[in-house]
Amino acid sequence: MTGQGTAGIGLADIQGQLLPRLNDVRRELRRIVEADFALIALANAHLMQMQGKLFRPTLVLLAEEATGPSRPRAITLAAVVELIHLATLVHDDSVDHSVLRRGMPTLNALFSHQVSVIMGDYLYSRAVIELVRLDDLEPLRILARVTNEMTIGEMRQLTAHDPLAFTEAEYDLLIRSKTASLLSGACEVGALSADPPERAALRRFGDNLGMAFQIIDDLIDYTEEEATTGKPSGSDLREHKVTLPLIYALPRLSTAERGVIDELMATVEPSDDLIGTVIELVADAGGLAYARERAQQFCDQAEAELDDLIPSPAREALRASLTYLLERRS
Amino acid sequence: MTGQGTAGIGLADIQGQLLPRLNDVRRELRRIVEADFALIALANAHLMQMQGKLFRPTLVLLAEEATGPSRPRAITLAAVVELIHLATLVHDDSVDHSVLRRGMPTLNALFSHQVSVIMGDYLYSRAVIELVRLDDLEPLRILARVTNEMTIGEMRQLTAHDPLAFTEAEYDLLIRSKTASLLSGACEVGALSADPPERAALRRFGDNLGMAFQIIDDLIDYTEEEATTGKPSGSDLREHKVTLPLIYALPRLSTAERGVIDELMATVEPSDDLIGTVIELVADAGGLAYARERAQQFCDQAEAELDDLIPSPAREALRASLTYLLERRS
Repeated sequence: MTGQGTAGIGLADIQGQLLPRLNDVRRELRRIVEADFALIALANAHLMQMQGKLFRPTLVLLAEEATGPSRPRAITLAAVVELIHLATLVHDDSVDHSVLRRGMPTLNALFSHQVSVIMGDYLYSRAVIELVRLDDLEPLRILARVTNEMTIGEMRQLTAHDPLAFTEAEYDLLIRSKTASLLSGACEVGALSADPPERAALRRFGDNLGMAFQIIDDLIDYTEEEATTGKPSGSDLREHKVTLPLIYALPRLSTAERGVIDELMATVEPSDDLIGTVIELVADAGGLAYARERAQQFCDQAEAELDDLIPSPAREALRASLTYLLERRS
Repeated sequence: MTGQGTAGIGLADIQGQLLPRLNDVRRELRRIVEADFALIALANAHLMQMQGKLFRPTLVLLAEEATGPSRPRAITLAAVVELIHLATLVHDDSVDHSVLRRGMPTLNALFSHQVSVIMGDYLYSRAVIELVRLDDLEPLRILARVTNEMTIGEMRQLTAHDPLAFTEAEYDLLIRSKTASLLSGACEVGALSADPPERAALRRFGDNLGMAFQIIDDLIDYTEEEATTGKPSGSDLREHKVTLPLIYALPRLSTAERGVIDELMATVEPSDDLIGTVIELVADAGGLAYARERAQQFCDQAEAELDDLIPSPAREALRASLTYLLERRS
């Protein structure tokens, strides 16, 4: 089983075989976003520096290799999936007024809200242009639906008027549309040449992996220091964002403890001390352990989807990505 | 020639024959944007009320009828073109912090900047989903390119750091990407079943018409009252937006007159009096007449493109749309 008694698995273990292709993805990404308009070129350069671990492109390439021969167009698909992810981050940061992302200033901090809105649109329309160039409607069908689902997820997040009334079912719905949809889409477009059952298995693999991914992301906000993650710890709580650990803990708190949570939600700029206290309360009520357990369950479901695939190094790398995901700290 | 000695041509003269199909477009638009998520449904309802004259869908349908038999998918294409237009307006209003559009509050005024950003993304991704459903890459190819061009146009608008140094060539580049691209795209997707030369003629028709459309739009900002247009007159000047009338007038002003313009640009919230004075200066220097003349020239070029089409009521309606455009006051 994933995540149990494994030695530390790093991204290098998963991406090792893929490094040449991931470099192609990076090159492809730069080609796709290229612009001769100065401000766009500047914003692009910043975004390319901000680039993360290419986790989504990795999934595209692994899903492809696990289900058939690798083809050049997978590089474009992988780049487009990352591009859609980038476009979403740019708009999210604008919507959330975030100033830091991966330890670097966001586009809206560096330029302006206006530039962020337009850049997101620019990146997304470039992604669509590239998909059209592939002369195949199928990846467009998948990724257009995914993009639409992500906007609905964003809207869900925005309209949680009474965050403390947020249920686990609503949380699942939110993270499925906000996060799991694109990870699932990444696996599915990677497996487009596979038989329908394999394609469906990889779609479900990505969905479960995506659920675990977001739960761990939300957990990391409780457990890790700014030095590790590149953003202040407890920043969700600071913004009154209620995620799984708190949802689990809430009904298990005493009246006095619940009062501390209410105080947090009523404070526009809560102190580090208050946030520290809340994190402890949530931990003591079992919220962190529960979230980790849920992530583990989603990973187990994801892993089960791999059983029907023919054994291959790519399949084992997909399996390893689940362990990586559970162990990651940033 | 268009616009010379014609009796007033209204939109009814152009859309008369199309009214049943335009009603289908409205219905199709509602179907496409439909959402069971409350806030999206609310925003949709507001946008549908704000709906304009369906000028772009009209062009799609006329271009189709002028080049061949009408087909049901033109209704979807027309609705999608309007949807892309709406998505752009929503993001534009958010970027410009506009509070009024067509005399009604904008989404960012009614809800928030956040809702506007997400709604724009929602509408645009719905448009892509519908285009994919048509099972034809061609309209997607056209409209993805157009959408990307529009984002570059928006960026151009944003980065005019020294507005008074704006040349007519730069203005043309701006309005071509910002406005003419979608009107050209509307005509081209309408003519997708036509022979390549006819399709190209309609694309160029739309491009020239689009240039005239934006010039007249910018002119109306100088000449018409708020009661007619639904937004305060001189609002471009108020926002230090330099358009063709002022570009033409600038080098023709005396030093003293130029001082008034500099004063306007240096004033964060210019008074109605100051704006009135600037409008008079621009008019006296021939800026309004010149802009009208340029719009007329673009309309003449557009009209010439119609010569190669087989005579039909739709072709005459396209011709009439040029006159309408030159005569419109809102």
